[in-house]
Amino acid sequence: MVNKIKAGIIGGAGYTGGETLRLLLSHPNVDVAFVQSRSQAGKPVTTTHSDLIGETDLVYTSDFNQPVDVLFLCLSHGESKKLLSENIFPATTRIIDLGNDFRLGDTTDSREFVYGLPEFQRDKIIAAKNIANPGCFATTIQLGLLPLAKVGLLKEVHTTGITGSTGAGQKLQDATHFTWRANNISAYKTLTHQHLGEINQTLKKLQPDFSETVNFVPWRGDFTRGIFVTSVLDCSLTLEEANKLYKEYYSSHPFTQVVDEMIDLKQVVNTNKCLIHLEKVGSKLAIHSITDNLLKGASGQAVQNMNLMFGFDEREGLRLKSTVF
Amino acid sequence: MVNKIKAGIIGGAGYTGGETLRLLLSHPNVDVAFVQSRSQAGKPVTTTHSDLIGETDLVYTSDFNQPVDVLFLCLSHGESKKLLSENIFPATTRIIDLGNDFRLGDTTDSREFVYGLPEFQRDKIIAAKNIANPGCFATTIQLGLLPLAKVGLLKEVHTTGITGSTGAGQKLQDATHFTWRANNISAYKTLTHQHLGEINQTLKKLQPDFSETVNFVPWRGDFTRGIFVTSVLDCSLTLEEANKLYKEYYSSHPFTQVVDEMIDLKQVVNTNKCLIHLEKVGSKLAIHSITDNLLKGASGQAVQNMNLMFGFDEREGLRLKSTVF
Amino acid sequence: MVNKIKAGIIGGAGYTGGETLRLLLSHPNVDVAFVQSRSQAGKPVTTTHSDLIGETDLVYTSDFNQPVDVLFLCLSHGESKKLLSENIFPATTRIIDLGNDFRLGDTTDSREFVYGLPEFQRDKIIAAKNIANPGCFATTIQLGLLPLAKVGLLKEVHTTGITGSTGAGQKLQDATHFTWRANNISAYKTLTHQHLGEINQTLKKLQPDFSETVNFVPWRGDFTRGIFVTSVLDCSLTLEEANKLYKEYYSSHPFTQVVDEMIDLKQVVNTNKCLIHLEKVGSKLAIHSITDNLLKGASGQAVQNMNLMFGFDEREGLRLKSTVF
Amino acid sequence: MVNKIKAGIIGGAGYTGGETLRLLLSHPNVDVAFVQSRSQAGKPVTTTHSDLIGETDLVYTSDFNQPVDVLFLCLSHGESKKLLSENIFPATTRIIDLGNDFRLGDTTDSREFVYGLPEFQRDKIIAAKNIANPGCFATTIQLGLLPLAKVGLLKEVHTTGITGSTGAGQKLQDATHFTWRANNISAYKTLTHQHLGEINQTLKKLQPDFSETVNFVPWRGDFTRGIFVTSVLDCSLTLEEANKLYKEYYSSHPFTQVVDEMIDLKQVVNTNKCLIHLEKVGSKLAIHSITDNLLKGASGQAVQNMNLMFGFDEREGLRLKSTVF
Repeated sequence: MVNKIKAGIIGGAGYTGGETLRLLLSHPNVDVAFVQSRSQAGKPVTTTHSDLIGETDLVYTSDFNQPVDVLFLCLSHGESKKLLSENIFPATTRIIDLGNDFRLGDTTDSREFVYGLPEFQRDKIIAAKNIANPGCFATTIQLGLLPLAKVGLLKEVHTTGITGSTGAGQKLQDATHFTWRANNISAYKTLTHQHLGEINQTLKKLQPDFSETVNFVPWRGDFTRGIFVTSVLDCSLTLEEANKLYKEYYSSHPFTQVVDEMIDLKQVVNTNKCLIHLEKVGSKLAIHSITDNLLKGASGQAVQNMNLMFGFDEREGLRLKSTVF
Repeated sequence: MVNKIKAGIIGGAGYTGGETLRLLLSHPNVDVAFVQSRSQAGKPVTTTHSDLIGETDLVYTSDFNQPVDVLFLCLSHGESKKLLSENIFPATTRIIDLGNDFRLGDTTDSREFVYGLPEFQRDKIIAAKNIANPGCFATTIQLGLLPLAKVGLLKEVHTTGITGSTGAGQKLQDATHFTWRANNISAYKTLTHQHLGEINQTLKKLQPDFSETVNFVPWRGDFTRGIFVTSVLDCSLTLEEANKLYKEYYSSHPFTQVVDEMIDLKQVVNTNKCLIHLEKVGSKLAIHSITDNLLKGASGQAVQNMNLMFGFDEREGLRLKSTVF
Repeated sequence: MVNKIKAGIIGGAGYTGGETLRLLLSHPNVDVAFVQSRSQAGKPVTTTHSDLIGETDLVYTSDFNQPVDVLFLCLSHGESKKLLSENIFPATTRIIDLGNDFRLGDTTDSREFVYGLPEFQRDKIIAAKNIANPGCFATTIQLGLLPLAKVGLLKEVHTTGITGSTGAGQKLQDATHFTWRANNISAYKTLTHQHLGEINQTLKKLQPDFSETVNFVPWRGDFTRGIFVTSVLDCSLTLEEANKLYKEYYSSHPFTQVVDEMIDLKQVVNTNKCLIHLEKVGSKLAIHSITDNLLKGASGQAVQNMNLMFGFDEREGLRLKSTVF
Repeated sequence: MVNKIKAGIIGGAGYTGGETLRLLLSHPNVDVAFVQSRSQAGKPVTTTHSDLIGETDLVYTSDFNQPVDVLFLCLSHGESKKLLSENIFPATTRIIDLGNDFRLGDTTDSREFVYGLPEFQRDKIIAAKNIANPGCFATTIQLGLLPLAKVGLLKEVHTTGITGSTGAGQKLQDATHFTWRANNISAYKTLTHQHLGEINQTLKKLQPDFSETVNFVPWRGDFTRGIFVTSVLDCSLTLEEANKLYKEYYSSHPFTQVVDEMIDLKQVVNTNKCLIHLEKVGSKLAIHSITDNLLKGASGQAVQNMNLMFGFDEREGLRLKSTVF
């Protein structure tokens, strides 16, 4: 018989809260103890996540202080730090923060957070008490660059990434008005995206002499799920050498695959996977990488981190059927 | 040399206001005297209609009392009546109301409104002082039924229509959140849509003994522009007879075409046209009709009505390149 | 330890073949013995189903005559009958045909097929040797009408349904060219859709005196997955009575839910569920029903039928994370 | 009274042929003498361009040898050269080739082609007898770089561009299957796109010492019309200086606008415009540029070139209502 852990979700009514809930509800090692939401307290979780009708009777709570083994913080940026400063959770409760409050080494009085990118530092995650879950663009870009940084071959990088609308969250705003966004493309935060901090932090840990820039141009796409990234840089490796480097680097990481054929976004939508495809033209190496921003870029990676911390199979609860089409 | 009329737009910052402005700016017989907007007064019209950058220097006004020959009211439902009760416009100013305040025969103290569906009563529009411009679903459904009502063959009708997101207006709301609406279909106001009033009013004028129902199921589609309607009813006409009836009815109406091949929505997107296709199966006649909800279903028809009232060619300013794709 | 059955898929390179494979690969009671494809024999299944990269090493076979417990026929219409006339499969091999060859009571020399709509005749499916899996529109429309037919209240029905592009299959054709279909709506097979045969067959079995018509207008939608159907008919039941009837009818059927709030298509996309919502306006009952055409409308229902035939939990392998967004 | 020229279209059944036809039909200075199509000869042009139903009775011809003033070649790449080698057109007939056969300085025995980018060399176009109309990506990228090259400030450029499906033409192919392309992003021809030749040719004419690379990553987008490009390069100019440079460069070019606010693709869809927006971050200048690939990127620019060659207003027939939504 399976010994189950208890999980709580704080901020369960948003997109990442909902995806985390969907994953945990069918995770064989987890009981969802509570799903907290300030705005929805007292209502069934199916009020906001109506696709779960018929699958759960859970009701949003306002109270999150019942003891759990793991706590997922699915809050707006800045709110996790505030929550942990105003509330004391048992030291035995592991915390996985899906926001960006602790990704750059910030700590609270009592808790240190480990940056939760398994392909970068799985061993530290296994031993961690608290996880700062990476950002979605940060995950997709880093997975495209980690092997190069590992061998010290990173140079100035030019990266363009396009993201689905779920990256902008549930709140109504001009940039997610259907009439505006449908069939539209736009740029935002050119070369200044907030994920550059965590990207550079990782890359410099792997390649301490890396002093160049990741020039990142983010675009908004007219789809809901997924991130497609292409990074281009000078590289002395041949295509064969580069593929060998990448395939060896990811050989023990079940969710990240280096693919010989060109990839396209829908291969990973609704999965926890990252696919990578390399091309070499002249002196340039081009690295394409794709993820589902809500799964490998958020809730899926959070559950992956939970699996690692609690000794479950890394893939447990994450063998998801892709939408494909 | 062309003698131009002066036009004013009230409520110019919304979708129908913007479309009316786009059409009038390139209309050879019209000078746009002002575009009023409460929320945007003092700002260039390109602030909200950024596709017009480089095409006009007009600035939104708060003041709409300069004399014009024609005034387009592009307001939320209920606001036109309020505006006309609180302001006096010169009796010589013709008014075209794109809202639904005057479609069912309501009048103000001094103004009577003619229902502005040219294919139903062009002569009355030509002689009118004020126009109640039809609703978008109402236009598309009526154009599918007018010929039958004319010859007294209307019976109980079952109609389903699907509309683009622009039909729901510019305001942020759950039903126009990109993440929700993309790739989604939903129903609303089943059998109770507010356009049924004007539809029945027209049909009963043409066929006074029509006492049956138009059972109308409206759906929300995952596109921005256009309405596709299919109406089904019992009909004793053969397909040939029905096509003959429809083609004769619309022979003098340049924007409504009866087409022998199956139609699809994008044939009319970004145009003022309505295409109709008929099928006969057993005793049932199926009538497919399509329009662009913002043009033939709103601003285009408003300009068509203006053309008729001022003696311009009915098509002036409305020979629009369709998007096709 | 789980005792697994062996499954084979014939016609594995198409959409329903691929979806069946995705479901079986993660089904705890199934080993996929082979996936046959004439066009792809010898190539990895990931050649056509590239989202499965990293999840399976299966290679398409040309040969399908190794013995299996269950055989899924994922062929074009007409090809299943041909296959079974030209090949002999062991009598112990159960066959689930996803095409339309055997839905109307056709048999082969040696095999009888049971119409595989569990909500209609689960007991017969449990005892069946061979299943004719229902069509996608047929499933969605029938689930909206079964309870009424059961109590003899079916009358003439007017139904409109809209389907995603996957319903048209993998073959390149004008109606699935992206440039044409994006943002487009069109009608086809008005009142003559081939699924009307199986729909009427079921309805008359439940309500033998039903001699009226299901007037079905199918539309093509500009999305890939899912079917949204609205049926309207005269009904003497109150809304409360209708909801009671439907909820009781489906109380023991885990995948079909009667929902009090309005439904929208994406609630069921990438799941095996059917959601139903009822409205009553005047004398009319409106029934909205939604499914994923490739799952509850095809491969998901096929696996559900397999579960029933082999005594597995009806939901096994079908607790799928919806895409939601 | 307007003196009209006669125009012929060769290859009228494709996308650019159709767009050219749409533009010419409403051009006040043009009579369409014929529209040739090998595959559709004898059929009405509305057979393939069904949005033109009710607007023209033109029938496709197989014969294109009636004399015209201007001939638009809307053929697949390679076919223009073949056509001109196999047929003799009067020397007085001006030819505008929308393919890529003559963009790199190739000539026929009797004809020299001028590269038809008005913002680069309008004077030469005015004097030209034959035009090689630029490619869609080539147009959008060059318009983002011309002012820098003019003043010798071009350095190595990193460019990403995303294109609508119409860029891939009318032919059915995997990359334009709706089921695949909807909600999908993919890369192709990374750093090797065929438009790089004409881009480099122009840039080197403006800045002869430019020996660096335009590193161009093309992506396929899930929309039908439009191109969004972001180019990034080192630049010593301040943002103010760059904006001044660009605005002065384009001050006399009516279709290209430098905009102070961030731009988005739908601002130009269904128009002949190019909008440009500049940003400066650290030492990097980011240049966003957008066009409609079928208009400014093909047929619209072809008509603009015709206007210039025949002394018409550059904007004649090109004051198009944008779709906006």
